[in-house]
Amino acid sequence: MKPFARLRWCVSRPTLRSIPSRLPPPRCTALHQRLRNYTTENTEDEMGKDKDKEKSNFQLKVPKGTKDWEGKDMVIRDKIFGAITEVFKRHGAVTIDTPVFELKEILSGKYGEDSKLIYDLADQGGELCSLRYDLTVPFARWLAMNSSVQSIKRYHIAKVYRRDQPAMTKGRMREFYQCDFDIAGVYDPMLPDAEIIRITCEIFEALGWHGRYTIKINHRKILDGIFQVCGVPTDKLRTISSAVDKLDKTPWEEVRREMTEEKGLDPEVADRIGEFVVQKGGRPLLDNLRQNQQLQSNESAKAGLADMDLLFTYLQSFSVLDRVSLDMSLARGLDYYTGVIYEVITEGSAPQTREGQKVQQAAKKESKSSKHDGEEDRSNDPSVGVGSVAAGGRYDNLVSMFSGKQQIPCVGISFGVDRIFSITKQRLNADASSIPIRTNEVDVYVMAFGGKGFDGLLPQRMEVAKRLWDAGIKAEFSWKVKPKLPAQFKAAEVNGVPFALILGEDELAAGKCKIKEMGLADGHPEKEGVMIEMADLETEVKERLGRQGGSPAGVANGVAGMSLEEARDAPKTS
Amino acid sequence: MKPFARLRWCVSRPTLRSIPSRLPPPRCTALHQRLRNYTTENTEDEMGKDKDKEKSNFQLKVPKGTKDWEGKDMVIRDKIFGAITEVFKRHGAVTIDTPVFELKEILSGKYGEDSKLIYDLADQGGELCSLRYDLTVPFARWLAMNSSVQSIKRYHIAKVYRRDQPAMTKGRMREFYQCDFDIAGVYDPMLPDAEIIRITCEIFEALGWHGRYTIKINHRKILDGIFQVCGVPTDKLRTISSAVDKLDKTPWEEVRREMTEEKGLDPEVADRIGEFVVQKGGRPLLDNLRQNQQLQSNESAKAGLADMDLLFTYLQSFSVLDRVSLDMSLARGLDYYTGVIYEVITEGSAPQTREGQKVQQAAKKESKSSKHDGEEDRSNDPSVGVGSVAAGGRYDNLVSMFSGKQQIPCVGISFGVDRIFSITKQRLNADASSIPIRTNEVDVYVMAFGGKGFDGLLPQRMEVAKRLWDAGIKAEFSWKVKPKLPAQFKAAEVNGVPFALILGEDELAAGKCKIKEMGLADGHPEKEGVMIEMADLETEVKERLGRQGGSPAGVANGVAGMSLEEARDAPKTS
Repeated sequence: MKPFARLRWCVSRPTLRSIPSRLPPPRCTALHQRLRNYTTENTEDEMGKDKDKEKSNFQLKVPKGTKDWEGKDMVIRDKIFGAITEVFKRHGAVTIDTPVFELKEILSGKYGEDSKLIYDLADQGGELCSLRYDLTVPFARWLAMNSSVQSIKRYHIAKVYRRDQPAMTKGRMREFYQCDFDIAGVYDPMLPDAEIIRITCEIFEALGWHGRYTIKINHRKILDGIFQVCGVPTDKLRTISSAVDKLDKTPWEEVRREMTEEKGLDPEVADRIGEFVVQKGGRPLLDNLRQNQQLQSNESAKAGLADMDLLFTYLQSFSVLDRVSLDMSLARGLDYYTGVIYEVITEGSAPQTREGQKVQQAAKKESKSSKHDGEEDRSNDPSVGVGSVAAGGRYDNLVSMFSGKQQIPCVGISFGVDRIFSITKQRLNADASSIPIRTNEVDVYVMAFGGKGFDGLLPQRMEVAKRLWDAGIKAEFSWKVKPKLPAQFKAAEVNGVPFALILGEDELAAGKCKIKEMGLADGHPEKEGVMIEMADLETEVKERLGRQGGSPAGVANGVAGMSLEEARDAPKTS
Repeated sequence: MKPFARLRWCVSRPTLRSIPSRLPPPRCTALHQRLRNYTTENTEDEMGKDKDKEKSNFQLKVPKGTKDWEGKDMVIRDKIFGAITEVFKRHGAVTIDTPVFELKEILSGKYGEDSKLIYDLADQGGELCSLRYDLTVPFARWLAMNSSVQSIKRYHIAKVYRRDQPAMTKGRMREFYQCDFDIAGVYDPMLPDAEIIRITCEIFEALGWHGRYTIKINHRKILDGIFQVCGVPTDKLRTISSAVDKLDKTPWEEVRREMTEEKGLDPEVADRIGEFVVQKGGRPLLDNLRQNQQLQSNESAKAGLADMDLLFTYLQSFSVLDRVSLDMSLARGLDYYTGVIYEVITEGSAPQTREGQKVQQAAKKESKSSKHDGEEDRSNDPSVGVGSVAAGGRYDNLVSMFSGKQQIPCVGISFGVDRIFSITKQRLNADASSIPIRTNEVDVYVMAFGGKGFDGLLPQRMEVAKRLWDAGIKAEFSWKVKPKLPAQFKAAEVNGVPFALILGEDELAAGKCKIKEMGLADGHPEKEGVMIEMADLETEVKERLGRQGGSPAGVANGVAGMSLEEARDAPKTS
């Protein structure tokens, strides 16, 4: 554990702060101070001794770029995960859980210049490890390690880590969740690809987005074909592709300048590319491209266009073709894509500038009035703009980077849950018609009341709670021996508990208690509650929960109907 | 990002391998080679260039002490999490998600000598962070940061990290899950404590353990009182307590030797302790201790015994007193407990020696024959022995270690899911009567068949799958244009899909298709399937799923009825 504790070195420069190493204490006090906070084995004991000092110096915060999730945010996020998981399972997916850190060498060489954003674990002896940067590389590593698995549909919802400059409000965090769905295996062309698009639509519908999203789609082979036809030299294909990928945020003139001035492309070639990549559309654009003799004579473009034709046919069968926009400017940054690529965008991810907001509002109006009207081309939708909420594509060669020989074709998508969370929350805030969000799911609050000499009926409340729990009903009671009735009602109201069970001495003596639905309007015949037999407690409660639609499952599932409205003023936690 | 990239040092000793620092490349090649694998910013580019070499050197494995979760194991673990979460929610708990790493100083000084097991992140500039070691300290940190929260019931199911010597088969891993439930806030005495015990019992019942577990319970104040009464000096209280805590694994003679020889306790004092700590029992033992005049005259013991008396009364109301054994030798290692402490044990966690197995089997028989018979004292149950599957207690002072001033009393429990997983899996393996575990949850496999000229009916299969998905039904079909019927049946069988929907050209032309329940016995009237109207597809499927008990919810929930038996030979993934 301490193999190098006794090493000594001499230091040849004065400014050595924050270098992770071990120096003899008397030599350099400032450095030593710093090192005490770094090394583990040598200094823990010293830190223990300094406990009081530590306490006063305490920085009571979470690390930069991370956050605690709590209260309503946690509930919304859980419901989003639940909705997404349900769709994944509906399509027969299984889940795999990989470690949060991988051997450092597994991650290296996979992320290009972004590799500098990888978090490393300290070298405390043993293997060198890094926190995972995404869920795709661990999946490919797992496939390579489990060669008996030749095909799988897997989903993975987990945190990934990027040592990026954080921008919390924009959902750019150092610790954030990804929801990945991937299909590995050899199948007939475009069938898994089509199912991924269908799954994507099912997820956004389950989240209550009701068509307010567009799936931009393209194909690496079409792109490469276009570049070849336009005259891009083979060694410039990827770098020109990267330039094109910026067209969603950068005007063509700027991209053209990058191609020609920075990347040395012939301006005529650039202009030919420009004519292609501005094109967006549905079936008519695809048919148009397929009639282009230049493209048809290029092997790559021809294959890509045939794939896309088949995909469009399948998307039609799946009733999701109207969600898709063929976008010749979509290129995607990552090198490993080999076929279809896609990105999901929505007006909610547009920039918050005044200009942007106007566009957004227009988009909102347009998409509201035109939703679900079938085969329309959404390419001119002003909502088609900035950030993506999900993205992915086909990557047929990544697994072989690990296995060396074995090649398992894969296609997948990753949902950016933090962006989806922000947009969903905004929309819930804006929609007053939806059901209020509760932080807990308690269905019954068990109360007691009485006059003079009231002893709190604690054993009776405990007995009733026990009976409800035994019946699988979510129930609470006050942890006070003699609680006051208003305090008990308040506790139930604050958490939006739908039913109160009220125990009184006389009623109990007669084998009865009162059940009261909370929040009934004045004048409602059951406003003051209904007397029920103690013997029928569980049945009576279940029957009412079912009637109210407030059954455990009913409340717990579904994001579409949630609202932040009514319960907004309640404390964030009970 | 690279503030120290240009530093130089001279090295005064030859053996410098694996020291995390940066050296000028030409000086020391072996070291440089090592460093290339360590430092991030300086060497990523070089690593990129070496991609081919990297590939051949590749170690295709997960880091030591970690594992991938997949297949049936993943399904069982998910169901365990689901069962535990359901109980937590039934008691009104909310969940909080904290970052996987905390500022290093938050964790330091909290774990005594185990602090050396904390994983640190590398110093890549910025804050120094460590991976969380448990979920309790982050919860206390959160409470201290959110001073508006004066009371909360929270659960947290997440991974924690310990740089321990791993022993994977014994469930000792470097990355493992904890399931924590804690109640913070000021309440009347022992009410939250009693609910934690009740929750614990509900969880093990939900996991199908049917009373095959014992909750050992004690109280720090009773223990301290006993030690004081026996004559332990105040400054030796904690260290003597630690010695006593070993009694579950170590014979008294050994513990006595540690107390007297190692810790310098008067042998007479040790013997007096010995008389107390061997005692285990239920209500009779508690009443006995409460009649002990010596203990009643000690403030600490008196308070602890009064608490325990109240707790036993409440546990009686909650019908869980028979699960509890007051155990005077239970002390718990962590310093921060201040009141009730408890540990859950089961015969399944006993050692796998031949002796141990005999005891285990005897225990199994005994507990099977005697289960659910009420108020019996389980203290002499031979299953009471070695490892614990859950543990916790009251810690009233931990939050103030962070907040400095504010004190929020807390009580909680942590479930060791990996041990629970191993034991549950063993029991499923042993129980042939339970339902087979499936890795996915697909309910319907959509197939097609036909004679000469059969085109595969792909659009029709897609249309049917789409209709099922739209109705929320879990469905799959073959991703082949022209699949063979036996291959389609095999795909359904391998995954244990309960229903096949079989499309044929003639049937479709007549507006019909066939639904077939899989695995019916020969001679069953519906063995060959039943013809249904295409128009009623969704209703017919839902009606059958409901009848079969194979509705999505029915299959997905519940751990108690699962089995590994029938589907054991199926491939682990589809």
